[in-house]
Amino acid sequence: MKQRRPSRRQLLRIGAAVGGSLLAAQKAFALETDPRKLGDPLGPYSERSPFEKAVRWRRESKTPETGSSFTPLHDSVGSVTPSALHYERHHSGIPALDPARHRLVIHGLVDRPLSLSMADIRRFPSVTRVLVLECGGNSAGEWGSPTGADVQRSYGLVSGSEWTGVPLSLLLAEAGVQPRASWVIAEGADACRMMRSIPLAKALENSLLAYGQNGEAMRPSQGYPLRLINPGWEGNTNVKWLHSLKVTDQPYMARDETSKYSDLMPDGKARIFTYTMEAKSVITFPSGGQMVPARGLYELTGLAWSGRGRIERVEVTTDRGKTWVPAALQEPRLPIALTRFRLPWRFDGQAALIASRAVDETGYVQPTREELIAARGTNSVYHYNGIKVWSVGADGRVSHVEA
Amino acid sequence: MKQRRPSRRQLLRIGAAVGGSLLAAQKAFALETDPRKLGDPLGPYSERSPFEKAVRWRRESKTPETGSSFTPLHDSVGSVTPSALHYERHHSGIPALDPARHRLVIHGLVDRPLSLSMADIRRFPSVTRVLVLECGGNSAGEWGSPTGADVQRSYGLVSGSEWTGVPLSLLLAEAGVQPRASWVIAEGADACRMMRSIPLAKALENSLLAYGQNGEAMRPSQGYPLRLINPGWEGNTNVKWLHSLKVTDQPYMARDETSKYSDLMPDGKARIFTYTMEAKSVITFPSGGQMVPARGLYELTGLAWSGRGRIERVEVTTDRGKTWVPAALQEPRLPIALTRFRLPWRFDGQAALIASRAVDETGYVQPTREELIAARGTNSVYHYNGIKVWSVGADGRVSHVEA
Repeated sequence: MKQRRPSRRQLLRIGAAVGGSLLAAQKAFALETDPRKLGDPLGPYSERSPFEKAVRWRRESKTPETGSSFTPLHDSVGSVTPSALHYERHHSGIPALDPARHRLVIHGLVDRPLSLSMADIRRFPSVTRVLVLECGGNSAGEWGSPTGADVQRSYGLVSGSEWTGVPLSLLLAEAGVQPRASWVIAEGADACRMMRSIPLAKALENSLLAYGQNGEAMRPSQGYPLRLINPGWEGNTNVKWLHSLKVTDQPYMARDETSKYSDLMPDGKARIFTYTMEAKSVITFPSGGQMVPARGLYELTGLAWSGRGRIERVEVTTDRGKTWVPAALQEPRLPIALTRFRLPWRFDGQAALIASRAVDETGYVQPTREELIAARGTNSVYHYNGIKVWSVGADGRVSHVEA
Repeated sequence: MKQRRPSRRQLLRIGAAVGGSLLAAQKAFALETDPRKLGDPLGPYSERSPFEKAVRWRRESKTPETGSSFTPLHDSVGSVTPSALHYERHHSGIPALDPARHRLVIHGLVDRPLSLSMADIRRFPSVTRVLVLECGGNSAGEWGSPTGADVQRSYGLVSGSEWTGVPLSLLLAEAGVQPRASWVIAEGADACRMMRSIPLAKALENSLLAYGQNGEAMRPSQGYPLRLINPGWEGNTNVKWLHSLKVTDQPYMARDETSKYSDLMPDGKARIFTYTMEAKSVITFPSGGQMVPARGLYELTGLAWSGRGRIERVEVTTDRGKTWVPAALQEPRLPIALTRFRLPWRFDGQAALIASRAVDETGYVQPTREELIAARGTNSVYHYNGIKVWSVGADGRVSHVEA
């Protein structure tokens, strides 16, 4: 494996190359705004510019209360996802909950069953964590062929937020967990009462009862007013509209952990309770459906994450894996958080096959699609984390690569 | 100065105290949602819950295109401010700029004048930084008496965001700064062409040309599509709707650095170019206008920041300065960023005077109002960073303290 680190000289040549093409196009002071005309007034709550059109994508459906909507990763900048564009995965629609009436019940194998209002929960010591959340079914289409045409539809069931809430361990201590307890059954207040079984060890380790997202109350589509957050675990376990935590001595084998969110292996057996999302990355520019408008230097960029901790490095190839170059990683690299990577990249009018691979702090290396299928077969729906290859044509058009 | 660190036992007693009052109120499974009725469908772009009402506050005005609007800090959670609630300070309204037509001109004492489109700028290597932004006039009313009644109106011209953009040093290198250059004049495309003089040393050190805020394009009210960000410097220097950077050998003595944003001292002389915002903090709960509903344990919380680097510690007093207790600081503590502090606090039905003071990594200690006035007099409008004292009444009502 050959590795080259971009030098300071290379970085400066990016500027020179862009600038060279700019001098010809110079139209100094072509300022649109009229100094005799005031702009819009101050307001109570800002909206984005009408020129900004990024939205989540979803499949057409006769039952739009169930399904997934995908974050527009190709429009992403930085390391967090705007709450308005965080991916969604709902099973029976978004309930409209009044936080003044909502309660969380903690019951089962506890000494002191509790019924907590949102005001009660906010009195407990809170913590704030930037975390990635990824649907267990993200990139499910990549198991088949052809692979997804753009980064939103193929990798867009992943988003990053700053979550604020109370460590679940504090509330379990308050309720008094009994010695034979080993699981916590989390249930949402959506119509289907979506339910998942969480091992008590995880609940005590780092699960959060979150009420805040990106500096304000979380959005209804993210679980308002209360959501269970299990750092690093598949999105489905992060139960939204949380209203009940039942402490038990066994899992419940709920619908979403037997008929769904389990992995059928080549031998016909199924893995269940495969909670952790492994290391993964994808290039967001240039990516499928985009256009590299002219020859010259660009910033190639993308996102990497791991359910097991920090991203240690991301390598980029522009020759389909013959050589790999380490990308720059945006600091601070927080554990279990989206990590932005960047690399200066010259488009010289030649077709190129580009891809990224993430390595996390445990040493785990994101596999190729072929390596993943060799290990897991093609019966799986969930936990696809293979390397995504984009094809940049000689004309600058970017598309997916047929498997 | 007496300092006590809350012990693990103290933390656990919070839970016990809250829980005790909850068992009586228990209404298990009083779930509002009807399992026969689906919720709202998936959507392209989420809004917040209709139960969430936080908005920016501004003074009534016949010219609402100029003035300030204040972030609702009392409703804040975590460490960033939602873009929709970021404070505003405009001088002639918000221009509606088309990013496809907007250009940045870099001219003056440069070898290669540049006119850059937004697409050109996005080709340069970018960086992402979480930064606090504070208006130089934040807390201006605190110089007088009585002091501000709530935390939004008295301290709310401060917000935190994740900004993404291109280091200005890269574009200046591209343009080729001439040897006798020492200043950069930044001008906005608002009707008044708001202008500030930036020392070249700062521009080369860490100024950013930002286009992204909190994971998407910045909002029009924050400078869309391009804003100059000068980390740690008063908000006014972070020129919005940036369209021109002129490299010069002297400052321009613009309106907003002579008649405004200068500090009149007790001896009648004025300080100008007082760019850096010193360390400051404020308690957001409990704060003026809020109510502590009952006796028991709560999470006292607030925000601290410094234009000079990281927050090293925040101390809290609940007896108007007789004793100070270190608060827990949310990690990661990023330089020049809002830092959330928290402390378990028991309201025992006795009146209390509560306040926070920040210490930054340079060792600078946030002054009392009296210390600040002793040094600066009362002619100043800008750069107020005194300690804010809240009064919690025996009835739980929180109010400001007359100076």
